[in-house]
Amino acid sequence: MKKALEGLVVLDLSQVYQGPYCTLQLAYHGAKVIKVESPKGDILRERHESKVPHEFLMFNTNKYGVTLDLKSKDGKKAFLKLVEQADILVENFTPGVMKRLELDYDEVLKKRNPRLIYATATAYGLTGPYQNFPGMDLTVQAIGGVMSSTGYPEMPPVKAGPAIADLLGGTHLLAGIGLALYQRERTGEGQKVEVSMHDALYPTLASPLAALYDGDPDNYCERTGNKHSGLRSAPYNVYPSKDGFVAIICATERHWQLLVDILEQQHLLEKEEFKNTISRAAHMDEVDQFVTEWTKNINKWEIVEILTEKGVPAAPVLTIKEVANDRHLIERNMIVEINHPTKGKVKVPGSTIKLSRSIVDNYQPAPFLGQHNEEIFENMIKKEEERI
Amino acid sequence: MKKALEGLVVLDLSQVYQGPYCTLQLAYHGAKVIKVESPKGDILRERHESKVPHEFLMFNTNKYGVTLDLKSKDGKKAFLKLVEQADILVENFTPGVMKRLELDYDEVLKKRNPRLIYATATAYGLTGPYQNFPGMDLTVQAIGGVMSSTGYPEMPPVKAGPAIADLLGGTHLLAGIGLALYQRERTGEGQKVEVSMHDALYPTLASPLAALYDGDPDNYCERTGNKHSGLRSAPYNVYPSKDGFVAIICATERHWQLLVDILEQQHLLEKEEFKNTISRAAHMDEVDQFVTEWTKNINKWEIVEILTEKGVPAAPVLTIKEVANDRHLIERNMIVEINHPTKGKVKVPGSTIKLSRSIVDNYQPAPFLGQHNEEIFENMIKKEEERI
Repeated sequence: MKKALEGLVVLDLSQVYQGPYCTLQLAYHGAKVIKVESPKGDILRERHESKVPHEFLMFNTNKYGVTLDLKSKDGKKAFLKLVEQADILVENFTPGVMKRLELDYDEVLKKRNPRLIYATATAYGLTGPYQNFPGMDLTVQAIGGVMSSTGYPEMPPVKAGPAIADLLGGTHLLAGIGLALYQRERTGEGQKVEVSMHDALYPTLASPLAALYDGDPDNYCERTGNKHSGLRSAPYNVYPSKDGFVAIICATERHWQLLVDILEQQHLLEKEEFKNTISRAAHMDEVDQFVTEWTKNINKWEIVEILTEKGVPAAPVLTIKEVANDRHLIERNMIVEINHPTKGKVKVPGSTIKLSRSIVDNYQPAPFLGQHNEEIFENMIKKEEERI
Repeated sequence: MKKALEGLVVLDLSQVYQGPYCTLQLAYHGAKVIKVESPKGDILRERHESKVPHEFLMFNTNKYGVTLDLKSKDGKKAFLKLVEQADILVENFTPGVMKRLELDYDEVLKKRNPRLIYATATAYGLTGPYQNFPGMDLTVQAIGGVMSSTGYPEMPPVKAGPAIADLLGGTHLLAGIGLALYQRERTGEGQKVEVSMHDALYPTLASPLAALYDGDPDNYCERTGNKHSGLRSAPYNVYPSKDGFVAIICATERHWQLLVDILEQQHLLEKEEFKNTISRAAHMDEVDQFVTEWTKNINKWEIVEILTEKGVPAAPVLTIKEVANDRHLIERNMIVEINHPTKGKVKVPGSTIKLSRSIVDNYQPAPFLGQHNEEIFENMIKKEEERI
């Protein structure tokens, strides 16, 4: 057994980021993932004239691609044949779509295949007052508190640039599938795995929520720029350097002692106002001023080398262009260059999960629309029909 | 079998957010999670005089708590007894700490218990040039590209307020454990699961990376405020309402047609510059102006009701205080009120993963430091020694 999920078949009806990221990881760890697109294709394809925008390539590596019209009788029939042979089905339609397609899990799919793990990822989940709100990463960041806790206090709320709602949702879905696979090994039964982006964002608010519950609610600060979201830790900020910005944080007393040594400000250790996390947080601006005095005349990577060598957490603020060529991400196979038949060399993400007994070492570019129709339908439907 | 992970024992050496969030979900789904703290306790306890800051309570529900000094001979001996009976070990020390404690997975733990799943979560992983950098959520957001892609173009880079690096790391770790548990059922063997916050952030950059690779690199925009991170979609923004802000996005042609109907601007459908995603993205500011003209005179929830009822993704920007009392999150058991022996009523997050065959219906508050020493040591160490 070379990979964790060898032998498993996944039907992937999902689109854009949330579902496809989940099934990408399933594919990397050995599952046969069949991306089932409508004849029009994943809506993400529309973002570029080529119909293979870079983000589509990032999330569909190592998948098979077939097209089926689930609204047609033949399409549905073929799909149900695939369901009978599948271990996992992933979809991120808005609630109700699968039912309208007469492919409801409880009423139809579970009866066809009781071992099926049915994984559904939505914006708000299948229950609760917002269940029918259509939602995407941006709107879930808005209603989920990400925007109001991001940015500077004097500026309007702003989203996190990265697609965090989508990716947190997709990763929770993946985790849920892992737990359901384990449970199926013990019981023989499949189940429904349900995840929402909105739910997935809530625990990320731990620091601001803690400030709200443990602190003074009347002095509660919604947005804190680069300071700690609960204003409960210092030093904790992004400081100007000679050539950009550098993030520095002292999470323990040891970090603070090391930093003070590097700054040659040992006298601070004796001061009552800096004696522990709580008192330093109360004198945050003074703390930040000491640090800035030192950082502003040094280059960012030099600061990071000095601090990290001593053991103080620090990192440069990198641009997207710098991240795209990050030597560390390349060495860890998080940026993998592969050949695409029409786009040439493209860079796709590798597996975020490194398993010592399931090495990811093969990368096939995302399928064209319907690329594997013949292969999949021939092998999984016709042969099955002949067998019967 | 009432819950997915019933019968499994987890040793949790992790601190702060990343590891503890992973083990929280393991505990919710039925594993017996033993939080092993040093006699000083999880560093997160230092954030509040009570030693039970709210964020600690959020991430340690349903866990047992014991203290062990792993640097002492007796502490190590007791820990190894627990390892022999454990299914999963979770730690998020900086790389090298477990080796210095003479508790290295390959050299020591695996030999004691070949079925052990050893899950390690770090800032940068166990390989690569940054492996020895100490890191926390803030610094990983800096080096990982989150900051440079968050905020307004005319302002400095800013972090995402929520702890996204920690939580994405922790969720990937949970997923990796799920896959490893499945593989262990098939092979009988444990393995090492490795996850880093830095790796986990990289795929969230899909939109800005796509803009970089598919677009014009010279006109590449690092930060786009609330516009699409790749400037590849419109309408996609946060618009002013009479009483705050509202996020609106048209992900499909259908959304756009519905919105234009609601705005009573059907003539826009005939214009070349708004005919599809690509052309609307090229005329983003004009599109945003039409939308703003309509939103600015209406209350945010009213806008959301009008749009979502028709099927257009929209959501109000909520404050943290509003999120903390969100009726949808409460109904979905994402905000659960429980009794804490010293703090009284506290609100902890429920399970983000809803499994139809593993219902989460019991919530015990986070343990005090060493609360279950007697119970665990009596049952798992003394009885084991007597048995031998």
